[in-house]
Amino acid sequence: MEIKAYRKDLSYSYTLGAFPTLELVRAKKDKVDKVIFHSSFTNEKVKKEIEKIVGINKVIINDNLIAKLSQKENCYVIGVFEKYNDCLSKDSDHMVLMNPQNMGNLGTMIRSSLGFEINDIAIIKPGVDFFDPKVIRSSMGSIFSLRIAYFQSLEEYIEKYPLHHLIKFMLKAKKNLRDEYFNQKPLSLVFGNEATGIDDKYLDQNSVVIKHSDKIDSLNITNASSIALYEYYSKTHSKQ
Amino acid sequence: MEIKAYRKDLSYSYTLGAFPTLELVRAKKDKVDKVIFHSSFTNEKVKKEIEKIVGINKVIINDNLIAKLSQKENCYVIGVFEKYNDCLSKDSDHMVLMNPQNMGNLGTMIRSSLGFEINDIAIIKPGVDFFDPKVIRSSMGSIFSLRIAYFQSLEEYIEKYPLHHLIKFMLKAKKNLRDEYFNQKPLSLVFGNEATGIDDKYLDQNSVVIKHSDKIDSLNITNASSIALYEYYSKTHSKQ
Repeated sequence: MEIKAYRKDLSYSYTLGAFPTLELVRAKKDKVDKVIFHSSFTNEKVKKEIEKIVGINKVIINDNLIAKLSQKENCYVIGVFEKYNDCLSKDSDHMVLMNPQNMGNLGTMIRSSLGFEINDIAIIKPGVDFFDPKVIRSSMGSIFSLRIAYFQSLEEYIEKYPLHHLIKFMLKAKKNLRDEYFNQKPLSLVFGNEATGIDDKYLDQNSVVIKHSDKIDSLNITNASSIALYEYYSKTHSKQ
Repeated sequence: MEIKAYRKDLSYSYTLGAFPTLELVRAKKDKVDKVIFHSSFTNEKVKKEIEKIVGINKVIINDNLIAKLSQKENCYVIGVFEKYNDCLSKDSDHMVLMNPQNMGNLGTMIRSSLGFEINDIAIIKPGVDFFDPKVIRSSMGSIFSLRIAYFQSLEEYIEKYPLHHLIKFMLKAKKNLRDEYFNQKPLSLVFGNEATGIDDKYLDQNSVVIKHSDKIDSLNITNASSIALYEYYSKTHSKQ
């Protein structure tokens, strides 16, 4: 099979670099189609671990293919995998991202989510392609260690997870994040996108604001969501 | 004077877009050399406010110059300003950034800093040029509302601000951010860069860690710093 430069409509995608490729093979070895090494890749320990997990028959060395797929990046390992569909857990807490538009931001939010123990992410369409190598790279491969799925609308998401209690992060909310104790279960932490936030029609008593000075209009969305996740984790997971 | 595409060694820089240009003229009108509008800019309210602040003689319409300076960006207003030197306040709390390398990250951290009421930022060299239009844009112009200055080393910074108590954010620290009450004054919150963090030699009892799950190696630096700033602001500025 010829491996093409990434496009959204392909049935496969790939990781760029040793770190995300390791995350891929550790978490999703059944989905790995091939791991391509550059001939000048010298980290034998990483190479041995990857070979051991996926099997030597899936490992190739091909400098031209690396150059073609990695484009401008400096990259010595690429892991090609079949795209897959996740179902979110009905019992666990979720992060819900409304219409994420920036690949780097989405990857960073995935990484923070895993760091603060939310392992299920709902993406409300339209949103960027979460299997794009740019998203995977900025997630540093953490996308393979959690469940992630698209929904056509917030309403469709709510219909599928009717027991989840939504906490919507909105600038117009009255409740301060510091006063939110995340007591209801299961929870969905809902974030808007950078440009538009969450539509005012969703504002209710379960909306929460991250208080900041009036010197800025709003926080960057990746920062806002990581602050909310940190507060959630501190109150629900940390033993103090 | 011919205005050239930005280079670090020029004595001036510029804002790209209406929002950061407004922030520039509101905060630093004495430094504004010129504001350039595209002929198709239609927001009369913004135009009037800018003209009122800087004076009509500093406002020009020049589509070619906009195209030349804005490069690939969609941009209708550019504010050209003389670069300036800030002195940090001796009494206020500071944020200290060791060797920031990414312009977008630096801009975002500046914005969070202002949002959480730290109005003095020290950049330890080598670090990116904070007057680069890319930094200004990702700060959304908030850079003009705080003080920012370079230092050759952390040692030089400490020598200049001997009364500041340093809190260093390090993965190997023992103290959890949640247990840090920011009681000493004045404070410096010190962050490493994305790739290397802060050198182990600086680890001491005033180092602090942001606890997260072991599923990720570390948080993105802009997320980590905004979490720390949020915790600082919640404990020192919020009335609850």
